[in-house]
Amino acid sequence: MSMSIQPKKPLNILQKMLDKEVVVRLKSNIEYHGKMVNVDIYMNMILDNTKEYNNGQQAASYGTVVIRGNNVLFISFRNSSNL
Amino acid sequence: MSMSIQPKKPLNILQKMLDKEVVVRLKSNIEYHGKMVNVDIYMNMILDNTKEYNNGQQAASYGTVVIRGNNVLFISFRNSSNL
Amino acid sequence: MSMSIQPKKPLNILQKMLDKEVVVRLKSNIEYHGKMVNVDIYMNMILDNTKEYNNGQQAASYGTVVIRGNNVLFISFRNSSNL
Amino acid sequence: MSMSIQPKKPLNILQKMLDKEVVVRLKSNIEYHGKMVNVDIYMNMILDNTKEYNNGQQAASYGTVVIRGNNVLFISFRNSSNL
Amino acid sequence: MSMSIQPKKPLNILQKMLDKEVVVRLKSNIEYHGKMVNVDIYMNMILDNTKEYNNGQQAASYGTVVIRGNNVLFISFRNSSNL
Amino acid sequence: MSMSIQPKKPLNILQKMLDKEVVVRLKSNIEYHGKMVNVDIYMNMILDNTKEYNNGQQAASYGTVVIRGNNVLFISFRNSSNL
Amino acid sequence: MSMSIQPKKPLNILQKMLDKEVVVRLKSNIEYHGKMVNVDIYMNMILDNTKEYNNGQQAASYGTVVIRGNNVLFISFRNSSNL
Repeated sequence: MSMSIQPKKPLNILQKMLDKEVVVRLKSNIEYHGKMVNVDIYMNMILDNTKEYNNGQQAASYGTVVIRGNNVLFISFRNSSNL
Repeated sequence: MSMSIQPKKPLNILQKMLDKEVVVRLKSNIEYHGKMVNVDIYMNMILDNTKEYNNGQQAASYGTVVIRGNNVLFISFRNSSNL
Repeated sequence: MSMSIQPKKPLNILQKMLDKEVVVRLKSNIEYHGKMVNVDIYMNMILDNTKEYNNGQQAASYGTVVIRGNNVLFISFRNSSNL
Repeated sequence: MSMSIQPKKPLNILQKMLDKEVVVRLKSNIEYHGKMVNVDIYMNMILDNTKEYNNGQQAASYGTVVIRGNNVLFISFRNSSNL
Repeated sequence: MSMSIQPKKPLNILQKMLDKEVVVRLKSNIEYHGKMVNVDIYMNMILDNTKEYNNGQQAASYGTVVIRGNNVLFISFRNSSNL
Repeated sequence: MSMSIQPKKPLNILQKMLDKEVVVRLKSNIEYHGKMVNVDIYMNMILDNTKEYNNGQQAASYGTVVIRGNNVLFISFRNSSNL
Repeated sequence: MSMSIQPKKPLNILQKMLDKEVVVRLKSNIEYHGKMVNVDIYMNMILDNTKEYNNGQQAASYGTVVIRGNNVLFISFRNSSNL
């Protein structure tokens, strides 16, 4: 994209998520909850103690997963509340 | 793309959205309403006090979300009115 | 793409659309009608006084929207006529 | 792609389409019929006197449209015949 | 991709297809049969005397079509036999 | 992607597949069985004596096909066994 | 993407997966279980003794498969437990 603005401050929030419990929503709406071990600028990431949720139901658990960033819709801290 | 025009003025509207209440419509038609904390030229963004809407119904709320820009359909100021 | 032709004249029509009333059809077939405030070579654009149409019915109105260009199917001047 | 051949002659047919009546089939199978005003190597193009066809039925007409090339499936001269 | 092999011989088969009768299967499973007039490394191509087949039924015929390569699934010589 | 590891050994298995009988599964789950004549790093490939399988049923046979790599899900040697 | 952070430590977990039993979930939700023989930064990978699972049911087995990375959703060690 050619939009010429530069953000005033970097999106350094991804760094603040390291070692935190996060919620990763994928484009398919499946969610992975776990501890953010690492993440890069493409949102490729490593989660520990990962739990998979499908329609709010836990579907599987994984020790460690490497998620390919292009599947990600958003990442949030786990202190969020579903209605 | 090779279209050789350059826009007369930069798309600096994204900067004007910082700290404003915005509506983010995704390709999936899910909307996120929240305060725009940061955004880059790919429309990667951080929202605070985020509320998720699906078909006009609030479905979830999140403290802070990092949305991957390639999912975005449009961003608008929150002073818009649905019919 | 490697097709080696260069267009004889640039696609400067996008510049001519500035400040004009336009129709933006998205891949999802949703349309946005509004005043073209800005557009870049990826067809990222800013519309003012935007009205959203779905199947010919107005579904919402927005003050200002920033549309991500990769969702766009075509842009037209608003003096077009549906059958 | 890394296939190391170079086409013997350039795809200059797109230039020959300028000012001709063309049929543009999109991936969605919608067709636009009109006069090719301009086209670039990504198949971004401007059509004049555009008519939209859906399943063989004319659905709309537009004065001038700018079609984003990544939606295009093929372009043909209008002297083609449907069965 | 980073796989470090280089093919032993170039994919020069596309050149051998010039002026031959070919079958072009698209991702949508629609097929175009015609004479390969030109093709580039992205599989953008020009076909002459093109016939469109949908589920084995001829659906349309076109004088000349320019197919955008990213829609292509495979290209084959026309001496193939459906079962 | 920015993950900074380099694989210890190159993915030279694709070279070992040359002149071997292979199974190519596409994203659409259609399979092509044939002799691997050539393949490049994008998994563009040429197959000889190609047979197309859909849901385990042979649907067509082709002399030689050029498959566009971005459609590929995986490639396997043909000594695999379906259950 | 332009987010300016650099991860503190590289995503070297992919290297640690070499010669380990892994689970590869694709976007289509099909899973491949096998020994990770090689992987690159795009998540192109070679698996040995591969078993394909569809909805938790083993559907096929393959000696060696080369999976195209852009189909991958996540990679996990095989010591995970489905619920």
